[in-house]
Amino acid sequence: MSEHKLLSTQSMRINGQRLWNSLMEMAEIGATAKGGCNRQALTDLDKDGRDLFVRWATKEGCSIKVDPMGNIIARRAGKIHDAPAVLTGSHLDTQPTGGKFDGVYGVLAGLEVIRTLNDNNIETEHPIEVVVWTNEEGARFSPAMIGSGVWAGEFDLEYGHCREDKEGKSIRAELERINYLGDDTFVPDTIKAAFEVHIEQGPILEKEDLQIGVLSGVQGMNWYDLIIEGQPCHAGPSPMESRQDPFMGLTTMMQKLYDMVAEYSPWSRLTFGDINAEPGARNTVPERLIVAVDLRHPEQEILDEMEQRFFDIVQEGGEQFGLKSHVKEEWRSPAVKFDQGCVQAVRRSVDMLGYSNMDMVSGAGHDSVYVSKVAPTSMIFIPCEKGLSHNEAENAKFEDVEAGGNVLLHAMLYQSE
Amino acid sequence: MSEHKLLSTQSMRINGQRLWNSLMEMAEIGATAKGGCNRQALTDLDKDGRDLFVRWATKEGCSIKVDPMGNIIARRAGKIHDAPAVLTGSHLDTQPTGGKFDGVYGVLAGLEVIRTLNDNNIETEHPIEVVVWTNEEGARFSPAMIGSGVWAGEFDLEYGHCREDKEGKSIRAELERINYLGDDTFVPDTIKAAFEVHIEQGPILEKEDLQIGVLSGVQGMNWYDLIIEGQPCHAGPSPMESRQDPFMGLTTMMQKLYDMVAEYSPWSRLTFGDINAEPGARNTVPERLIVAVDLRHPEQEILDEMEQRFFDIVQEGGEQFGLKSHVKEEWRSPAVKFDQGCVQAVRRSVDMLGYSNMDMVSGAGHDSVYVSKVAPTSMIFIPCEKGLSHNEAENAKFEDVEAGGNVLLHAMLYQSE
Repeated sequence: MSEHKLLSTQSMRINGQRLWNSLMEMAEIGATAKGGCNRQALTDLDKDGRDLFVRWATKEGCSIKVDPMGNIIARRAGKIHDAPAVLTGSHLDTQPTGGKFDGVYGVLAGLEVIRTLNDNNIETEHPIEVVVWTNEEGARFSPAMIGSGVWAGEFDLEYGHCREDKEGKSIRAELERINYLGDDTFVPDTIKAAFEVHIEQGPILEKEDLQIGVLSGVQGMNWYDLIIEGQPCHAGPSPMESRQDPFMGLTTMMQKLYDMVAEYSPWSRLTFGDINAEPGARNTVPERLIVAVDLRHPEQEILDEMEQRFFDIVQEGGEQFGLKSHVKEEWRSPAVKFDQGCVQAVRRSVDMLGYSNMDMVSGAGHDSVYVSKVAPTSMIFIPCEKGLSHNEAENAKFEDVEAGGNVLLHAMLYQSE
Repeated sequence: MSEHKLLSTQSMRINGQRLWNSLMEMAEIGATAKGGCNRQALTDLDKDGRDLFVRWATKEGCSIKVDPMGNIIARRAGKIHDAPAVLTGSHLDTQPTGGKFDGVYGVLAGLEVIRTLNDNNIETEHPIEVVVWTNEEGARFSPAMIGSGVWAGEFDLEYGHCREDKEGKSIRAELERINYLGDDTFVPDTIKAAFEVHIEQGPILEKEDLQIGVLSGVQGMNWYDLIIEGQPCHAGPSPMESRQDPFMGLTTMMQKLYDMVAEYSPWSRLTFGDINAEPGARNTVPERLIVAVDLRHPEQEILDEMEQRFFDIVQEGGEQFGLKSHVKEEWRSPAVKFDQGCVQAVRRSVDMLGYSNMDMVSGAGHDSVYVSKVAPTSMIFIPCEKGLSHNEAENAKFEDVEAGGNVLLHAMLYQSE
């Protein structure tokens, strides 16, 4: 799109009420008593949600493709034949006690961009594509983001197809059952730029009273099991000073770890999500503690430094109390830096629209993490109530939903020139 | 027994080898591959152990009574008809991965006392009784020490009979099945003094290189659930300073609790035996931590003071981090002071025999806790290897086993004068 044409579209706005109504209509599929949504990947309800999206997109004149992982691509043709597409997308699947916005908002905001272009008879140079990625949540099938992960080449198709739910049903079998096992090709090379608009799933924008987060990347995240081994003994006869009590080590380690991570604020994150004591009898000093640790920072270099200090603290804490302690690495997701061109497109769009905003990084994983590995990508956040997500009480304000849609529209327009 | 007669028996000693051999023979019933013993209460193996004890005691001329809880009383008559008895006893049941000494030693040391009196043709003024208490361990039927507890009136017989194992088999049905549901009466009024010799089940005597512990009482013990409630949130997007993270509260509380308890050393005990995080997902700050706490001190007044400070620390720690925290009381066993006369009898015996010794309190529960509520009672400890018990590697030295038997012999002789 030429600069002239961009200027002529500056006043264009999405239809916020239409987007909101679509969100509410989609939320009826799998609606829970508490106002949330339970529409887990590749269930009958997920099929109903997908079918509704396909009906809406088809009605807007889009062509529909489905790839072998069940990712759905709705395409609005551009002026230049075979030009790489400007893409947006997210997911329609939810957590078991999920909300109405996580993922769904990103898909339907993309659809609303197409509806707005149709309303205004705009023909873009590049095609516009809206993608529904399969099984982002990882609630039914592990790992999360498997649809975008296979597409981006992080996992191979065989691996993706073989993932099973708790009942032993595979992704491939379930895709076939709900009629979303496609064979269309859809390759990263065909992408000019990719965007994803999402609720923040954290409290920062709401607390700062801002409407838009301009994302520069995604935190690096490392998962570990911290294992502390002592000497089990009877709670009564064993003097405190003769004990090798894993909890004594843990207390000191945790305090030092919280202090260390605070040095890297405000973007450092340290979470102890789970803990188990073995043998776990009230009147026995545990033989072993196993603590699930999640460590994050948006700068890979800083995350690496935090990791080294984490290892040192665990080592010293163990030695101090005569315990065996070690850290088992479970999973790593390196920090992601989004494409500067895409980030600039979002920033330009926000500035033009005049929304209050801040630069930020995503603390959670999103399909865009995998997409960004093979295509220029960035993300847009809007606030959500109390930062709650993965929760039936998940909520967002109408005006923020509308603002995020407008930012997406103009970022995509800019890239599709 | 007159002072003259006591003097004349001062040189009397048990037959240590015979006691050791009996221990090893009993340990064959339920012997485990790792050298321990699995002879749980009221199993076929427990019946075999009981039968062996009854055969041995009968051979020594004892009369046998079995009460409605299956407690076995082997009685060696005294000179004075109907005089109150001097009693000793412990238990023959073991933990699933138990050892050869816990409980069994106290029963067979009592039998060895009778054998020694027979060897030396000693007729005591008061009868001597050796008791096998039912289900001390609590491993198969909960609660522990139910046989002595019912006998001492802490639980009623109906309650004792109805206790069930995991398969739903009741104590009454199992007593009947193995032919140990007796109807003999055996009342606390008939006891002049009671003793129990036991392995320490802790490391103190071994560490101090002493042979005998002279027990003045049993620690008071309180069990609690410490519950800390925060706000679950996603490990990524939620800034550290906005979190209500139960682990932050726990870390501070635990550190303060360990420090507080150290002020009451050397006899104070604080154990965190188990912990659970809810929902327990690696990338979610937990909503709730539940920690099993065991707090002990031999002085009830000090235990009460420690408890109050424990409550205060939990309260303050919760407030400091914006968490809801509270303590749920689960069980209490008040501190026990043993009978001064019985403690003196043990001390006199140890001094006369010249064994290295120290005064101590028991940190674990024993049948003597309940016995002491209705009869003058005290206990004798011998060291066990590395303080290990409830463990197949449980072990004691021959010379300590012999020493404890001699202390028991002379304490009982002194009281049966």
